[in-house]
Amino acid sequence: MRNVLIIGAGRSASSLIRYLLSKSEEESLHITVADLSMELAEQKTGNHPNAEALALDIFDAEERKAAVAKASIVISMLPAHLHIEIAKDCLQFKKHLVTASYISDAMQELDEEAKQKNLIFMNEIGLDPGIDHMSAMKVIDEIRAKGGKMLLFESFCGGLVAPESDNNLWNYKFTWAPRNVVLAGQGGAAKFIQEGTYKYIPYSALFRRTEFLEVEGYGKFEAYSNRDSLKYRSVYGLDDILTLYRGTIRRVGFSRAWNMFVQLGMTDDSYIMEDSENMSYRQFTNSFLPYHPTDSVEIKTRLILKIDQDDIMWDKLLELDLFNPNKKVNLPHATPAQILQKILSESWSLEPDDKDMIVMYHKFGYEINGKKAQIDSKMVCIGDDQTYTAMAKTVGLPVAIATLLILNGKITSSGVQLPTKKEVYEPILNELEEYGVVFNEQTVPYFGYNPDLF
Amino acid sequence: MRNVLIIGAGRSASSLIRYLLSKSEEESLHITVADLSMELAEQKTGNHPNAEALALDIFDAEERKAAVAKASIVISMLPAHLHIEIAKDCLQFKKHLVTASYISDAMQELDEEAKQKNLIFMNEIGLDPGIDHMSAMKVIDEIRAKGGKMLLFESFCGGLVAPESDNNLWNYKFTWAPRNVVLAGQGGAAKFIQEGTYKYIPYSALFRRTEFLEVEGYGKFEAYSNRDSLKYRSVYGLDDILTLYRGTIRRVGFSRAWNMFVQLGMTDDSYIMEDSENMSYRQFTNSFLPYHPTDSVEIKTRLILKIDQDDIMWDKLLELDLFNPNKKVNLPHATPAQILQKILSESWSLEPDDKDMIVMYHKFGYEINGKKAQIDSKMVCIGDDQTYTAMAKTVGLPVAIATLLILNGKITSSGVQLPTKKEVYEPILNELEEYGVVFNEQTVPYFGYNPDLF
Repeated sequence: MRNVLIIGAGRSASSLIRYLLSKSEEESLHITVADLSMELAEQKTGNHPNAEALALDIFDAEERKAAVAKASIVISMLPAHLHIEIAKDCLQFKKHLVTASYISDAMQELDEEAKQKNLIFMNEIGLDPGIDHMSAMKVIDEIRAKGGKMLLFESFCGGLVAPESDNNLWNYKFTWAPRNVVLAGQGGAAKFIQEGTYKYIPYSALFRRTEFLEVEGYGKFEAYSNRDSLKYRSVYGLDDILTLYRGTIRRVGFSRAWNMFVQLGMTDDSYIMEDSENMSYRQFTNSFLPYHPTDSVEIKTRLILKIDQDDIMWDKLLELDLFNPNKKVNLPHATPAQILQKILSESWSLEPDDKDMIVMYHKFGYEINGKKAQIDSKMVCIGDDQTYTAMAKTVGLPVAIATLLILNGKITSSGVQLPTKKEVYEPILNELEEYGVVFNEQTVPYFGYNPDLF
Repeated sequence: MRNVLIIGAGRSASSLIRYLLSKSEEESLHITVADLSMELAEQKTGNHPNAEALALDIFDAEERKAAVAKASIVISMLPAHLHIEIAKDCLQFKKHLVTASYISDAMQELDEEAKQKNLIFMNEIGLDPGIDHMSAMKVIDEIRAKGGKMLLFESFCGGLVAPESDNNLWNYKFTWAPRNVVLAGQGGAAKFIQEGTYKYIPYSALFRRTEFLEVEGYGKFEAYSNRDSLKYRSVYGLDDILTLYRGTIRRVGFSRAWNMFVQLGMTDDSYIMEDSENMSYRQFTNSFLPYHPTDSVEIKTRLILKIDQDDIMWDKLLELDLFNPNKKVNLPHATPAQILQKILSESWSLEPDDKDMIVMYHKFGYEINGKKAQIDSKMVCIGDDQTYTAMAKTVGLPVAIATLLILNGKITSSGVQLPTKKEVYEPILNELEEYGVVFNEQTVPYFGYNPDLF
């Protein structure tokens, strides 16, 4: 019997737990699902004979260490900043660790000790980061194996509402942490390389510099730039690549409309609004507009945004009820971003029968024997329901599969790592296909950013 | 003989030192001008019999304390964050202190001890802060003395180039710290009240929401909002005022043009640009534009900013040489803001014969016996030359006059303070008039922001 300790039983853990329970007989697994909420943990374990629920306060070191000590491997699905104490326990009790989070500096510092103790601390093995690394490295390694030289790598990912549930003007609903959506792109300029030139986009222009993407069967999408596209340049071995760009996928028209909030100042999270609790939605909107004794909030909004009343952008604002004088914000000491999130949540929450969708799109431009070509690799995943969402599947399944591979000695490199090695990505990508997470790769002409030159 | 210790002999100290030297005979003053640079200190003292220059490293506590101990009063003209150690020495040796800087939290903490020791720590007694406080409080106190109730207070100030030296398309030259001009408005939304409504403007919209101002004999100006207009609400006793707004004065058209830099991202000080040292001005500009294989940097700039080639905005960019492929930035590890500052400094530096100009404009709306009225108070000061600039006069003279008033026992309130009391502002404003710093007050109809209702 191998003991798997899963810490954190939130939304992202559902597919992960289902996978491990389904394998528990043949793989002799005993699964412990630990959460601060016993109810949540029990919900996830059900009455499964190979599972147990555990109420665990991770800030109680004694409890936490006791749980880790009993495990063969630990999966932390907690928010990223809470992994580090668990990671230290794993060092102390010599346990492997799996997380879906970015490697923090604090985590990286444990690398040497983990290697000495021959422990695998696998991180960034969810969706993004996770499946993006694996599906990209697979193609990059294949191109290199044929003697190709990488010219361009563009990678896009988005969590969206599935087409069958897409019924608002924004073609968007919150399928993951809404706060991250409201704050997206803030805190610094976006940075990337195009054809050897470094490019920088300030936040105020970010949502106006989009790229279009077409996914067969799903139609047209757009993407705005992520903040730092160069983060994985060295990790992927792309130090001399000409074009490196990462972006977030939305339906066409979303970014142009979102930019209205940015221009008005509604996404700002840096200050508290006066008397936010008693403010109406209309007053909230009016706070960002010039004072006028008689002009309506509506006409001032259209004037400052330069949109006509028959513009779809205007209908998008109306749909959100931003001009309602009777709805109260009801959030004390709130920032504009917090208030906007609340208003959007009323329009953009998934209905009980709604499904979500994950879209990932990579472009690999390369040169081989003097000839240039490009591979486009696309993946679309639709959620089953609101428990086994596309997000839960794509985040949780790679974590679960990696956990079994580590337990079974198939992943051998020790230390703090992310899934860029073939021994990791190959079996995981193969198995993900059984669960409907399939990348379609097609070779297309390579134009780069110079289509007219061809 | 009273010993006045002036620490810091930079540009802002010239008028201050000249004033005190001119009064040194009749007031029995011995002036010590201390600076890290002995040369700079000697330049300012000349061979004046009542003055001495002192080379002082303020980080050498022993030296610093020795200098403070010998003084009757200390003036610190150092950058604001360097006042605090000097202030503590002043407590130790029981000396009065005068600065032209905003009261920091650390300075405020010394209030009680200063009061116990009956010491006057007078701050914010330069131009802005300084003359703004004094000229505003004078009118506010007069309105209150007549039983008036304040409805509106708007206050504007700007350091500009004098009309006779105004010979570029931007109608602007750097007359003070260029870095502060490049970073103006960053770090949070502008916040103010208009007709009882709180208003917030994000940085990306700040330079598009200007107000016009007319100053007789000097023409039309514009103002953009300062970050926190509410800072002095309580200090001025205006807690229930309907409109409170503070702004920075520029010539009409400056803000609209400056906004181009903001939109492109050139004012960003939060990241280092790749290989900034070897970048040309043209490459710098191109970094903020989409890649295109053949379109010129010029056409891309006009397209993204939506300006035609016969637009004066375009001429303003050309005047700065932003598209020059041969001029190198030559600044290693520089932020966009640092590079922009360098480029602007080449166009916007004062020529040897140029003069600067300070413009201050207050509006006071009030109600008295059921009737509304408004007082507009305006001041323009032109520099004599590049030593006795308008900035040096308006910053240094109030400091100098206050120093004498304290020495002569005319200012009596002790503790950490700013010049909002009549015993302080009345004699200083009166004496400033002798030096050409004159406020013209006129009563005008009060419209507030509701002109159509009258």
